[in-house]
Amino acid sequence: MSVPTRFSGILSPVVTPFNRDLSPDPERLVDHCRWLLSKKVGLAVFGTNSEGNSLSVDEKFALLDGLVDAGIEPGRLMPGTGCCALPDTVELTRYATELGCGGVLMLPPFYYKNVSDDGLFGSYSEVIERVGSSRLRIYLYHIPPVAQVGVSIELVERLVRRYPQTVVGIKDSSGDWNNTQALIERKWDDFRVFAGSETFLLQTMRAGGAGCISATANINPAAIQQLYAGWQSAAADSQQQGLDDFRLLMHRYPMIPALKAVIARYTRDTEWGIVRPPLVALASDQYQGLVAMLEKRGFSMPGRCD
Amino acid sequence: MSVPTRFSGILSPVVTPFNRDLSPDPERLVDHCRWLLSKKVGLAVFGTNSEGNSLSVDEKFALLDGLVDAGIEPGRLMPGTGCCALPDTVELTRYATELGCGGVLMLPPFYYKNVSDDGLFGSYSEVIERVGSSRLRIYLYHIPPVAQVGVSIELVERLVRRYPQTVVGIKDSSGDWNNTQALIERKWDDFRVFAGSETFLLQTMRAGGAGCISATANINPAAIQQLYAGWQSAAADSQQQGLDDFRLLMHRYPMIPALKAVIARYTRDTEWGIVRPPLVALASDQYQGLVAMLEKRGFSMPGRCD
Repeated sequence: MSVPTRFSGILSPVVTPFNRDLSPDPERLVDHCRWLLSKKVGLAVFGTNSEGNSLSVDEKFALLDGLVDAGIEPGRLMPGTGCCALPDTVELTRYATELGCGGVLMLPPFYYKNVSDDGLFGSYSEVIERVGSSRLRIYLYHIPPVAQVGVSIELVERLVRRYPQTVVGIKDSSGDWNNTQALIERKWDDFRVFAGSETFLLQTMRAGGAGCISATANINPAAIQQLYAGWQSAAADSQQQGLDDFRLLMHRYPMIPALKAVIARYTRDTEWGIVRPPLVALASDQYQGLVAMLEKRGFSMPGRCD
Repeated sequence: MSVPTRFSGILSPVVTPFNRDLSPDPERLVDHCRWLLSKKVGLAVFGTNSEGNSLSVDEKFALLDGLVDAGIEPGRLMPGTGCCALPDTVELTRYATELGCGGVLMLPPFYYKNVSDDGLFGSYSEVIERVGSSRLRIYLYHIPPVAQVGVSIELVERLVRRYPQTVVGIKDSSGDWNNTQALIERKWDDFRVFAGSETFLLQTMRAGGAGCISATANINPAAIQQLYAGWQSAAADSQQQGLDDFRLLMHRYPMIPALKAVIARYTRDTEWGIVRPPLVALASDQYQGLVAMLEKRGFSMPGRCD
């Protein structure tokens, strides 16, 4: 198994399909991942928008197996593996690494609040030492609006200095461009900074970042990939504006149920709309409003549906 | 197996001892639990102060087995079973119920923020239906300062109305007396309201509450139990003042490492001081300061140590 290439470009926190009994559906997941790959979008499975923290460790093992068994290239997978409990994070990270995943996206342990950088360094460090693989590539996951426990720039610095071949990137979902910019400006050797949404994609590319990992890439991958590929072109600013407009419309609805509703509508497969508690599927009027809005825009998911 | 009696009185979120390799130590846990029981304090294992959310589901199974195999009365156990992922919460809750635990203390799923009461009702409801046991007794766990996801009074109301024999109490760790009082004043049939610390013990008892579940009961159980037993006595106010003074001193230090440091000092067993990342053990000067402060007060842990 070769050493993984570092990620760049666009990845999607792949939404996780559930059956009516709320069990994950590996086949639907494979279908969706194949489509995303066909749009040149990488697979950040088990992210926030994947309802990743609503899945058990065993369920994640099974879904990873299902993807790889179906022929999905493991090097295109960046599964989320950061859990509250150290042994869970170690187990998942080890499993993903042994499976050949290109990297893992790792939340800090997020139950205990106001923990110190020493404590978080200790946590990441224990995981790295216990997994003990030269193939492990960690992308840190900074998402303070949800996890509440963030990854400070000082902590990134400590980790990169101590584990330069292992801690190779970050997803910054702070929503704070100043933080993303500061991370890029540190210019750690070949360190990959991903914006947490396409809202900052053009700014990220112009500043020297690596790309973005974005929820809406689940349904709008081609347009996001197009901006990534052509960010130096004359059309870039208007493409960014188009992405912003689309995202703003999506933000009228709770993001995860809305993404699933869109896939349900365009695949004509209503079960795609199912979410796990504590999330709630879109109400009927929300669904109708969302679909009407998309149809008005001439939205489609070419190759995926219809 | 008989139907569990509802809890009342004082419980401790029992601190979890770790070995040097950070694995949990079932024997030390048994020792500590026996001592707490001898002080008439119940066992809320796997709570926040137990570093419960830093333990995997399998580790919790093994620790529960260890306690019951050692002869600890399961009816005195109220393990924390609320996880982020529905299947984990179901598995743990089922296991605890089948083991004969007197009840479980259940956090709402806490990764996703700003979720609706409908979503949280759905989550608790799925757990209850899937466990499907007439022996299940759930104490809701409201701790917004840590979990960030709270259990509103309206949600409690919905759950109690739908599952009156199952949802039988709450631990209110909001730190907001108005909320605790409002919960007590709802007077749901035989519903048990526990304050989240001894700070509100006397107020809770006077208002008609059931007791408290308090971190410091790990080291100061007798004094807290004494106030519980004698809350109607003339000495109650000064006893409450004494508990408040002690807690205020403990709050000079991070609570979980400080509790463990005290046990380490008085059992002369330094390994008790070990915490799991992301927590950090007390620094040497903190430890010395804490011990000096306790010795000045003539603190002791009778029957446990020395």
